[in-house]
Amino acid sequence: MTQLLPSALVDAIDDLGSLPGVGSRTAERYAYFLLRSDKHISEKLSTSLLKLHSGVKNCPITFALIDSNETASALYSDPTRDKTLIAVVEEPLDIIALERTGQFNGTYHVLGGAISPIDGVGPEQLHIPELLKRIVKDKAKEVIVATNASVEGESTALFLQRNILDAGIDVKLTRLARGIPVGVDLEYAGQITLSHALEGRRLF
Amino acid sequence: MTQLLPSALVDAIDDLGSLPGVGSRTAERYAYFLLRSDKHISEKLSTSLLKLHSGVKNCPITFALIDSNETASALYSDPTRDKTLIAVVEEPLDIIALERTGQFNGTYHVLGGAISPIDGVGPEQLHIPELLKRIVKDKAKEVIVATNASVEGESTALFLQRNILDAGIDVKLTRLARGIPVGVDLEYAGQITLSHALEGRRLF
Repeated sequence: MTQLLPSALVDAIDDLGSLPGVGSRTAERYAYFLLRSDKHISEKLSTSLLKLHSGVKNCPITFALIDSNETASALYSDPTRDKTLIAVVEEPLDIIALERTGQFNGTYHVLGGAISPIDGVGPEQLHIPELLKRIVKDKAKEVIVATNASVEGESTALFLQRNILDAGIDVKLTRLARGIPVGVDLEYAGQITLSHALEGRRLF
Repeated sequence: MTQLLPSALVDAIDDLGSLPGVGSRTAERYAYFLLRSDKHISEKLSTSLLKLHSGVKNCPITFALIDSNETASALYSDPTRDKTLIAVVEEPLDIIALERTGQFNGTYHVLGGAISPIDGVGPEQLHIPELLKRIVKDKAKEVIVATNASVEGESTALFLQRNILDAGIDVKLTRLARGIPVGVDLEYAGQITLSHALEGRRLF
């Protein structure tokens, strides 16, 4: 069969298809949209993708994502934030979610994932030793384990708890509350969510 | 609020968000995926997006998309294809859909859209005059109007029919059959689709 599309378009479709959850139809749609739009739009996207890796690095203390010319996460160096309160999250983007609440004035520690034998992620790949050192160094009073409410997140939380106990570190360990999300009717809340909500019930 | 993400990541998220149907969550997911993946993947995508516009142009005869170093669409210049049979489509990607059937050995003509007053697309923006010239020049015997089964596609088809009549061009004008798509149960086929299917019923 004759090649039906110009090779520059085929390349763009193939490479857009490497994005997560993007099949060939969606990739075609994206590429064709860019082709029909002003040249400037695809050039701008091209430039930001080219600079993505070189412009970003991990904070050596918290492992949050920072500008490559920064030395540490602004959320950590900020003197108004409480370094004795550490929220432990799986991924850098989880920080955004917690910051959006506007309720947290401590600092963060990014594990870099969760323990998942299926995906080949063991505890040795997570930034746990760095967390233990930091708890001691910053004289942390409380560590909030804010891993995901998944099997992997739970295993990681339990592993973390054991590590902190084994290291003989004296710190208050807390978890995010599990319960019924706002706006969800009881009948649609899952069984496990409901069990958590019952277990964690509070006085008025 | 302190900037929560490195600016290189924010730029990538913003620019990925310019793709059609991509909201901020999806753009975050794409950008974070690229950041976690090998540098090579985002660089490859960056390069193909940069070359997209310069590598593609419209065929001056059929308005299909072609490599910028080609002079005409290979589907048109191919001597084995029947130039007296022209399928008229709205967009260049429609050609792919028709070619995938493996049932068509004519040539194509891309209108470059469909008449849509809401989107500000009038008939003067479509490649209709070029089609009329081509019908005469290539002594076309049949023109298959393969516009979409939408209000805009129908209007465009009727406008085209009138244009060809007004120009006094003698050519067989046909349309794609409308009917029940394969794999769809009668009860789920829409009312208009069923009307078309009844109207276009055929002998065994």
